[in-house]
Amino acid sequence: MAKEIGVGVLGYSIGRAHAHAWRDVAEVYYPMKLVPRLVALAGRTKKVVKFEAAKYGYAKTYSDWEKVVTDERVEIVDNCLPVALHPAPMIMAAKLGKSLFCEKPLARRATDAKRMLDAAEKAKVKHMVGYNYRFMPAITLARQMINKGKIGKITFFRGSYLTTNSTYDDPKTPMRWQFESSLSGYGALSDLGTHALDLARYLVGEVGAVAGAQSTIIKERPETEGARKKKRVNVDDLTVATMKFRNGALGTLETSWVNPGRMDYLSFEIYGTEGSLRFNLERINELEIFLSERDRGTSGYRTLNVLAKEHPYMGKYWVNQGGGFGWDHSFVNEFHHFLTSISDDRPVGPQGATFLDGYRNCQIMDAIADSAKSEAWVHIQE
Amino acid sequence: MAKEIGVGVLGYSIGRAHAHAWRDVAEVYYPMKLVPRLVALAGRTKKVVKFEAAKYGYAKTYSDWEKVVTDERVEIVDNCLPVALHPAPMIMAAKLGKSLFCEKPLARRATDAKRMLDAAEKAKVKHMVGYNYRFMPAITLARQMINKGKIGKITFFRGSYLTTNSTYDDPKTPMRWQFESSLSGYGALSDLGTHALDLARYLVGEVGAVAGAQSTIIKERPETEGARKKKRVNVDDLTVATMKFRNGALGTLETSWVNPGRMDYLSFEIYGTEGSLRFNLERINELEIFLSERDRGTSGYRTLNVLAKEHPYMGKYWVNQGGGFGWDHSFVNEFHHFLTSISDDRPVGPQGATFLDGYRNCQIMDAIADSAKSEAWVHIQE
Amino acid sequence: MAKEIGVGVLGYSIGRAHAHAWRDVAEVYYPMKLVPRLVALAGRTKKVVKFEAAKYGYAKTYSDWEKVVTDERVEIVDNCLPVALHPAPMIMAAKLGKSLFCEKPLARRATDAKRMLDAAEKAKVKHMVGYNYRFMPAITLARQMINKGKIGKITFFRGSYLTTNSTYDDPKTPMRWQFESSLSGYGALSDLGTHALDLARYLVGEVGAVAGAQSTIIKERPETEGARKKKRVNVDDLTVATMKFRNGALGTLETSWVNPGRMDYLSFEIYGTEGSLRFNLERINELEIFLSERDRGTSGYRTLNVLAKEHPYMGKYWVNQGGGFGWDHSFVNEFHHFLTSISDDRPVGPQGATFLDGYRNCQIMDAIADSAKSEAWVHIQE
Amino acid sequence: MAKEIGVGVLGYSIGRAHAHAWRDVAEVYYPMKLVPRLVALAGRTKKVVKFEAAKYGYAKTYSDWEKVVTDERVEIVDNCLPVALHPAPMIMAAKLGKSLFCEKPLARRATDAKRMLDAAEKAKVKHMVGYNYRFMPAITLARQMINKGKIGKITFFRGSYLTTNSTYDDPKTPMRWQFESSLSGYGALSDLGTHALDLARYLVGEVGAVAGAQSTIIKERPETEGARKKKRVNVDDLTVATMKFRNGALGTLETSWVNPGRMDYLSFEIYGTEGSLRFNLERINELEIFLSERDRGTSGYRTLNVLAKEHPYMGKYWVNQGGGFGWDHSFVNEFHHFLTSISDDRPVGPQGATFLDGYRNCQIMDAIADSAKSEAWVHIQE
Repeated sequence: MAKEIGVGVLGYSIGRAHAHAWRDVAEVYYPMKLVPRLVALAGRTKKVVKFEAAKYGYAKTYSDWEKVVTDERVEIVDNCLPVALHPAPMIMAAKLGKSLFCEKPLARRATDAKRMLDAAEKAKVKHMVGYNYRFMPAITLARQMINKGKIGKITFFRGSYLTTNSTYDDPKTPMRWQFESSLSGYGALSDLGTHALDLARYLVGEVGAVAGAQSTIIKERPETEGARKKKRVNVDDLTVATMKFRNGALGTLETSWVNPGRMDYLSFEIYGTEGSLRFNLERINELEIFLSERDRGTSGYRTLNVLAKEHPYMGKYWVNQGGGFGWDHSFVNEFHHFLTSISDDRPVGPQGATFLDGYRNCQIMDAIADSAKSEAWVHIQE
Repeated sequence: MAKEIGVGVLGYSIGRAHAHAWRDVAEVYYPMKLVPRLVALAGRTKKVVKFEAAKYGYAKTYSDWEKVVTDERVEIVDNCLPVALHPAPMIMAAKLGKSLFCEKPLARRATDAKRMLDAAEKAKVKHMVGYNYRFMPAITLARQMINKGKIGKITFFRGSYLTTNSTYDDPKTPMRWQFESSLSGYGALSDLGTHALDLARYLVGEVGAVAGAQSTIIKERPETEGARKKKRVNVDDLTVATMKFRNGALGTLETSWVNPGRMDYLSFEIYGTEGSLRFNLERINELEIFLSERDRGTSGYRTLNVLAKEHPYMGKYWVNQGGGFGWDHSFVNEFHHFLTSISDDRPVGPQGATFLDGYRNCQIMDAIADSAKSEAWVHIQE
Repeated sequence: MAKEIGVGVLGYSIGRAHAHAWRDVAEVYYPMKLVPRLVALAGRTKKVVKFEAAKYGYAKTYSDWEKVVTDERVEIVDNCLPVALHPAPMIMAAKLGKSLFCEKPLARRATDAKRMLDAAEKAKVKHMVGYNYRFMPAITLARQMINKGKIGKITFFRGSYLTTNSTYDDPKTPMRWQFESSLSGYGALSDLGTHALDLARYLVGEVGAVAGAQSTIIKERPETEGARKKKRVNVDDLTVATMKFRNGALGTLETSWVNPGRMDYLSFEIYGTEGSLRFNLERINELEIFLSERDRGTSGYRTLNVLAKEHPYMGKYWVNQGGGFGWDHSFVNEFHHFLTSISDDRPVGPQGATFLDGYRNCQIMDAIADSAKSEAWVHIQE
Repeated sequence: MAKEIGVGVLGYSIGRAHAHAWRDVAEVYYPMKLVPRLVALAGRTKKVVKFEAAKYGYAKTYSDWEKVVTDERVEIVDNCLPVALHPAPMIMAAKLGKSLFCEKPLARRATDAKRMLDAAEKAKVKHMVGYNYRFMPAITLARQMINKGKIGKITFFRGSYLTTNSTYDDPKTPMRWQFESSLSGYGALSDLGTHALDLARYLVGEVGAVAGAQSTIIKERPETEGARKKKRVNVDDLTVATMKFRNGALGTLETSWVNPGRMDYLSFEIYGTEGSLRFNLERINELEIFLSERDRGTSGYRTLNVLAKEHPYMGKYWVNQGGGFGWDHSFVNEFHHFLTSISDDRPVGPQGATFLDGYRNCQIMDAIADSAKSEAWVHIQE
């Protein structure tokens, strides 16, 4: 028989996509042992919190995240707040023995992430970071093919996340927390690049050293919409880096949110001794694969429509439909994975990203930023 | 204040996508005046009906569609049964004053569709046919651009729907109702081509005459999975036609479900005196547009990612996310449109497809099939 | 030892591409037994003829085509004149025992083409029609794959040739011989569609019956550049047709030179029981192939870059270079084929198009035009 | 009246593409003031030299390059030898007052390149390096658009050149001079990456600092075809780098010749404050442009087919033909530019690459290689 589990969500921005997925997961993966119930939502603006709660069916609303964390009915704390507000609620929730779900990146700096990891480990609770792209059919398929050795030994990874994040390319777009390092950690790197780095680790392996450079393209922005007064942006609009993986592969990372023309270009190309793989999020359900064959005359990249019943997760969706898998379903799959980890007491990794993954990711971001300042390669502590 | 409206669904195949959308619509379009409640589900196999009902939260299940239609709490009858079973339930429901939603095509032949249209009109109830692709951002945007005159006067329409419908290209795939004309009407034409014809009418206008040809590629199939005994397929696996629109444009239609390589290729290209548009469902969120410009040196097809807040429907979804709009959301938008038509007493057309559209569509299909037999152009009655 | 063979060219429009190829062929295919020498050029405007002759190294120029045909040093007559001027020079040249090369289409009507074929056959001279696309690596490869059975039995052919032929979409573009049926035969059909029909026959087989429709989009044009006086266009700007191949496959043809957005879109898709092939000339060196495989999870269209040494003709070019094979080289390959047919006394077909192919092609075009008038399928005489 | 100018070519490998272009340039650009004549060819293997000379019409052949350089009829020395053999012949030719054309990269190291530059400058002769991609319509168009400010201030450059150079991904492919640093300088970096760096400089500006990493994927290869004995490869199969341009833009370079799936992927993406541009050589005649527009609802990348008469160089070719511009024509345009520089005494730069460009390019390559060793950013001397 299905049991209910109470979910408390902090924040209603990306929190909307979470709430939608918490609502849908038990239907898509019916029957599940644990069925999530939206218990409480916390957020800054009262009116919005009320609206969102009504929309998604939350039982209670608060303006203070502590109230959610300490609410007895909340068994999973799902943290969608600005990055600077990741550690405190997660550490408090860990101490209370609750399951931890945290949006990416785990923290502003690796030191904070380490504290969160330690708290979670000490409390022996389940912990997961919201690297939802791991749960897309095309990307999970990529991992399966790599693990089966289809492209041989990996030699080269190209990862990027390039967007204009709606209107970040417009100097009139005002300040927001993402442009404040005290709240966000880094800029495009923390918001977008972190996803590409997670895929690097998920698909290729640990990164040993990096050399990076960063720039702020739009150096100041109006304090608020339409304001004359401007404020200095102190994070990167653009970060580039070269990487050395511990397994010998080389890699590059490119991330920017001021890239006119790109809408949501999270992409990777992975080359191995026997083939290669390509993906980009703007064509979410396509994976391009090249498998070295004896007959070079008929070899070429294949474009897979990763929507057939043979593909990861698709058994639960509408197979063979163009666009049958949308962005929102990555959250559904992710939460199914997390709920199953809890109900069956199975490890979240390596398919899901744990706080250890979140910490490793922060280490790489710190190293890139350090390298950009020191103009030297930075080796990452194992 | 929101009011509830009872929905009864007949059939659980495409009915799954409907149930999902009936459940999600009130969340996505919150707040709505009318909130659908899944009241009753009818289906052939008891065990499956039970499972589906539990999954989607239907209050009751029946094995007989009449029970659903006559259930007092059912105010909308949503017909997802095989085509041959479209007329009777819809006509009965009309007589009972219920709102009518019917999957495509409306009927096996235009004569049946006409009876359904007449019944609905006589009963003065709302009626809609499930041409859900009208409710995709890229396609609605195409219509808006055409209506604004962006591509001038339309001269040429190329429409196609080519798939392998999972495994229809495999001769071992057994008989199913789609292969039986007494149940389905036509083959690929009724199942897929009908969508392309609807887009022809939605985007270009009424079709005046057609010349067509049809073939059955896999002439017989096992009676059931693995059976030795075979049964003759009496519908088209492939239909091609040329069309003359009443406004002078010419067109082509190509549809097949035995097209190795194609997964879900519903496509159109529309040429006008001032530009052109291209779409295919395998890249669900892209619309390609060409606008004739004085400077031919910098003119070219633009690939729009139709996922920005400026695009139709996207205000209700996650904007600027690659794949932020999935196939299932077309049903959500469609049901929102239907529910609003009911709550605000507004016409379903021309944005939504009414039974009149369903009837016109059947007329064209009949004409194509007639033409294929007579080897002459067939003019369609106005 | 190489022997020279004298070439006389009639016309300097597409004649430029011919002259270039006659000059290059002996270098690209070095060593050849027969080396072409440009002996004489005929053309209407004296000044242009002189310029072209100097550019390409023709020994002599004439304003009258008869002078070229009867010039004793001319052993190959290469006819690049408007279509209405194809029969007379070719028939005269045949009687003089010269080798015949004629641009496409062979004639305005099949009856004329038949006379040309008969003359050539009677004179026992080599004859070839300029369907140069047969000599592109991607297209020859397509034929090889089909012949090896890679895509099984062919069921469906989609062919199109859509362009704006530079500025034909502009109503200010003045009359030219292509818009006069007395000179050209048909419009887009004769100029472009004929190529797609040739590929249909080259790749799929003989066409048995057609149903077509035609329209003239820009009904009148200035008599000359900038002229106020207009003249009626009496050919098709757009032709669509459905086709029945003698082997049971169905097909479509779409051709237009008023297609804003298309530059040079000669395309085909060929579906068989075991796979499919796609090509379009705007991506001249790519062939997309789908081969049905047991594992549907990793099957998809492969994009071949047909530029490797394993690919047809490429041994003579710069292999593995993006764009290593350009449009002009199709003429080089074509002339090599023709010269080898002469030097080694080998048949021009089935790789090259003979006057029989030219005649068959005209039959289909006549049938499409007849069908467009009669509104009935037209069966083609075998 | 046209004058002839004698050309002596050293080497017959890429020398074939040169010879072809020297032969064609006077036809394509007819009438030219200076018409090249192929006077002498030098090459290692006598039999091949003889064959090539006969094929392209060279008057004389030598096995020793000095003979070509000192041949009195040779006025242009075109150096297609392995990189290590670039300096000596060019310096000797400079002293003899001959015009200098040298394949890329100019030299193994910047110090050698500097000597060549100094010699050329001192002798006041014309000098050019074979960065032929500058002379492709799509790439020249990119430069024109950038110079007109169409994409605003450049912020980010992504350049790559990824191939398998036919079979370099195969460990059985034996040693050749490209794998020997004493002959080639670097590996993929010298052979391919140098082109991407040239485009970086041509399109964006001077590079100020780099951080790079290199790896050798196939560490040893058979000494000769099929040999058991293996030899160590001492150059990079893969080089990645991040770059800081002097104008503030950031950039990345990725180059490898062991990239299964890539045939000839020279690519760039350039982002500016107002738009972006994309190109890749596998689609040689396409340029993708994004121009920021007020209406985000209809903005998207445009795919230009750079084959119209409005596009650079195309007035000399067959306009509006798919594939009307092939790879070989870039050499034709390049030689036309060089010959015109000589005949009209005009500077080779900035459109053509001079020995100064060749030297700057070598500086960047040296800096990348140094950085890969030192694990620190290397600043380039101005």
